Amino acid sequence: MADLKAVVAVENIRYDRKAEALYILDQSLLPGEEKEIRLRTVEEMVEAIRALRVRGAPAIGICAAYCMYVLAKSIRTEDRQVFLRELSRYGQILSDARPTAVNLSWAIREMMRTALEHLNDPRGPMLDALYERAVAIHKDDMDKCAAISEYGLSLVKDGDGILTHCNAGPLATSQYGTALGPILLGTERGMTFHVFSDETRPLLQGARLTSYELQRAGVDVTLICDNMASIVMKNGWVQACFVGCDRVAANGDTANKIGTSGVAILAKHYGIPFYVLGPTSTIDMDCPDGAHIPIEERDPNEIKTMWYEKPMALAEVKCYNPAFDVTDHDLITAIITERGICRPPYTKSLKALFRD
Amino acid sequence: MADLKAVVAVENIRYDRKAEALYILDQSLLPGEEKEIRLRTVEEMVEAIRALRVRGAPAIGICAAYCMYVLAKSIRTEDRQVFLRELSRYGQILSDARPTAVNLSWAIREMMRTALEHLNDPRGPMLDALYERAVAIHKDDMDKCAAISEYGLSLVKDGDGILTHCNAGPLATSQYGTALGPILLGTERGMTFHVFSDETRPLLQGARLTSYELQRAGVDVTLICDNMASIVMKNGWVQACFVGCDRVAANGDTANKIGTSGVAILAKHYGIPFYVLGPTSTIDMDCPDGAHIPIEERDPNEIKTMWYEKPMALAEVKCYNPAFDVTDHDLITAIITERGICRPPYTKSLKALFRD
Repeated sequence: MADLKAVVAVENIRYDRKAEALYILDQSLLPGEEKEIRLRTVEEMVEAIRALRVRGAPAIGICAAYCMYVLAKSIRTEDRQVFLRELSRYGQILSDARPTAVNLSWAIREMMRTALEHLNDPRGPMLDALYERAVAIHKDDMDKCAAISEYGLSLVKDGDGILTHCNAGPLATSQYGTALGPILLGTERGMTFHVFSDETRPLLQGARLTSYELQRAGVDVTLICDNMASIVMKNGWVQACFVGCDRVAANGDTANKIGTSGVAILAKHYGIPFYVLGPTSTIDMDCPDGAHIPIEERDPNEIKTMWYEKPMALAEVKCYNPAFDVTDHDLITAIITERGICRPPYTKSLKALFRD
Repeated sequence: MADLKAVVAVENIRYDRKAEALYILDQSLLPGEEKEIRLRTVEEMVEAIRALRVRGAPAIGICAAYCMYVLAKSIRTEDRQVFLRELSRYGQILSDARPTAVNLSWAIREMMRTALEHLNDPRGPMLDALYERAVAIHKDDMDKCAAISEYGLSLVKDGDGILTHCNAGPLATSQYGTALGPILLGTERGMTFHVFSDETRPLLQGARLTSYELQRAGVDVTLICDNMASIVMKNGWVQACFVGCDRVAANGDTANKIGTSGVAILAKHYGIPFYVLGPTSTIDMDCPDGAHIPIEERDPNEIKTMWYEKPMALAEVKCYNPAFDVTDHDLITAIITERGICRPPYTKSLKALFRD
């Protein structure tokens, strides 16, 4: 899949080997400002992760891998035990920046493993091995996104209207993304889709990020408020829904950004297929069903004040602000992974993914 | 129903007869600031209507009636033909402030009719007649809201969770409101409801107004984003949905604030009754079904920039911003009017309302 050329104008993470510099697109400034920032020190890296300048679980993992390479280069010692101790300390600091991000700690462990494997190599080759591991982590995500995109693309046809919720595109992953992958891949091949992007309250990832990256990629995208999905479907403008996923249980129940289950219920009502797209690493075969997925509740001020010039509700008004919801498996037409398309019953089809 | 005592702390429209002054609560400042403003001149009145300082079709009508009285008092002439011409000119200026607001032009016509009927009375009694007509229009709306509230209250029980969308409360009408009427009336009688208020993007009437007036009235209200209605219903927290209506077709199809149809579909999915509340004046027996109700599209900047400190989407991103949607009659459990509760088939039950 390496011959695929990205249609996305702006890269979220970029290592410039000539300048020996790691750059990220500061996502916290989007869509108002497109600004790359350079990450040099562990303090800058932690701040970038904490302030959501880099976000999306796969993107955080990729960024952390390059960060570990940059930090390894900065360690000035010939004593390899001191080097390893120092790198491990940096890894811990990075991991602590967002403790719940699985990909972050995974990528750091991978980089530590590589450092250990090459501990007796000369400094140059050891650093090269670290760089190559970071690139491999980056490329592996690209390949998975590309495979998901190919499978997803087989489910729609030229001219289709596609509704998406939240942001599961290149900014959150690499190159194609998951839910936006089929759209970007099809666009690259000359197909036309009419995409409806839910703004996705309260943090507006659809307005700030999804409509931004689709517009930049030349896709016909229309931004709507979350509560407009029903009328858009009723108007006959939507032939498929594509969403990402945060965790898929063994029976197919899927946790994703708050509001996803509502979109699935509307899609079922209007007879529109509803597709979940994500890598197999998101499938948790140890979790029997959605009832076992804990739902994070976030700060009420995300609803009441954030992004706004003036308070949007009385200070004393209670808010309920779940970050995710669970979409029941019987509302999901198919789950698309890099290993293929799973159809109901998911208890069988998901298990088959992990057979080999 | 005149013995009902409002639980609402703040009146939206108030004529102080001692001070001979008309006051409105400036709704455009809510919930950050609770400020009454006095309306003296036709210019101040037009500005207040245009800038949504007074809003909600019934409230605008009530306000316009008092405005006509205030303006009539200001006309300094003994020549009744000159008086009538001047009052009519004021009426036209007020009507033009929001040309699509049916209640506005209706209230002004009513006041002009009253002026004509009393044209040969002395100045004092003629002005008294105008004042009494304005009070009657106000009281008629209160009575209708109170009757709707009584009927609506018969559909829920103490302790119920109730989800509402947009704002159909006292601020938009008088005293009890329509969709919020049963909640306020029940609260007044010592009942407890747990209300979930959709924030209602893009103009956030639920966040700014509904949660404000329920909180002020001592109701247990929780503000949610529109896309959280599904999880709240799934959690088992909602026993009924109450919404207002902008226009009900002869077959029961109901136009209301954008997002209402989505709430109705979710309610059906979760087996929760979905009730529409509104006066019979909202029922349009000449309109056969929802397909014949035109849907107003509004400024995309309501989605992209309004209320926000910084742009929430790229300036060039397209938006679709319908102000209303149509909820199909087969999703509606009952339509509650001041004349009683209509159940399906609505073609029969709505017609019966107008039989006498």
